[in-house]
Amino acid sequence: MKYCSHCGSSVSLQIPPGDNLPRRVCEDCGTVHYQNPNVVVGCVPQWQDQILLCKRAIEPRSGFWTVPAGFLENRETLQEAAIRETAEEALANVDLGSLLAIVNVPHASQIHMMFRARLLEPDFGPGDETLESALYTEDQVPWSLIAFPSVRFTLERFFADRASGGEELHITTVGPIKY
Amino acid sequence: MKYCSHCGSSVSLQIPPGDNLPRRVCEDCGTVHYQNPNVVVGCVPQWQDQILLCKRAIEPRSGFWTVPAGFLENRETLQEAAIRETAEEALANVDLGSLLAIVNVPHASQIHMMFRARLLEPDFGPGDETLESALYTEDQVPWSLIAFPSVRFTLERFFADRASGGEELHITTVGPIKY
Repeated sequence: MKYCSHCGSSVSLQIPPGDNLPRRVCEDCGTVHYQNPNVVVGCVPQWQDQILLCKRAIEPRSGFWTVPAGFLENRETLQEAAIRETAEEALANVDLGSLLAIVNVPHASQIHMMFRARLLEPDFGPGDETLESALYTEDQVPWSLIAFPSVRFTLERFFADRASGGEELHITTVGPIKY
Repeated sequence: MKYCSHCGSSVSLQIPPGDNLPRRVCEDCGTVHYQNPNVVVGCVPQWQDQILLCKRAIEPRSGFWTVPAGFLENRETLQEAAIRETAEEALANVDLGSLLAIVNVPHASQIHMMFRARLLEPDFGPGDETLESALYTEDQVPWSLIAFPSVRFTLERFFADRASGGEELHITTVGPIKY
């Protein structure tokens, strides 16, 4: 950010009065431009003993597999976002279940929140940001091709809970992908 | 937002290719400026049978009572934010417990996330954004002066769970304050 989105003048990094972090502040109109983390919301859609995964068509991690998930939009609830993203990315309709995982992703300034879900019918396909969507049993999951650490954590906890009959909420923090 | 924060030119509302929502797009350099919800994180600090509340010194709802809470910052985890906000607003140190409440606040494009917590010692005071901080037993809580619906929900669930010995996560959606 170089310019004030309110008046178009230059901004500079300053700690505003009463604040304790540097913010981008307009040198002309004084507007403080806060930048805060984004929320990514998704789900693990289950059909019988299989789950629905999507092969990403976009960067980052194009060609790698994920659960349907994306950025929470303004004026949206977490549940609405998870259902919408599944419809957009996997062309699939789900009933949401309990919250499965919250993953802090501080290096990317993101919080990932993943729900359990049930596919309403075995209909799915690739949305615009998806190369391919497919149902996998636990032993078919392409673990070496999972897109993000938060998705790996989500899937591991999903299968462990399914095996034990539990429905815990799991909270963790992940670092960058190690290539 | 009227001007591009990247180049200073004018922005206009457009639906970018491959998107389905109007975004502010620079008419010159084409940068798409996404705006997404913010996360508010806080906790209910407990000391013996009392909880710590703060009387707000800032708008919105100056003079009304809340739990220590504030905006999640970039590169921060939810837990770090809850501990930091409690230190800033109530000058108090806490050990965080389990996640107590997630509240969708779609009219404000916010998600509020509240943890259980224990005060490490009965030391507290008013931070810069707080007029007064004080310990309350359940029957002393100033229910008619609680700042936000999400805080009321959080406190109601906190006391109900404490009475039953449960430690559930509660998820809800609230609308605007009715004056």
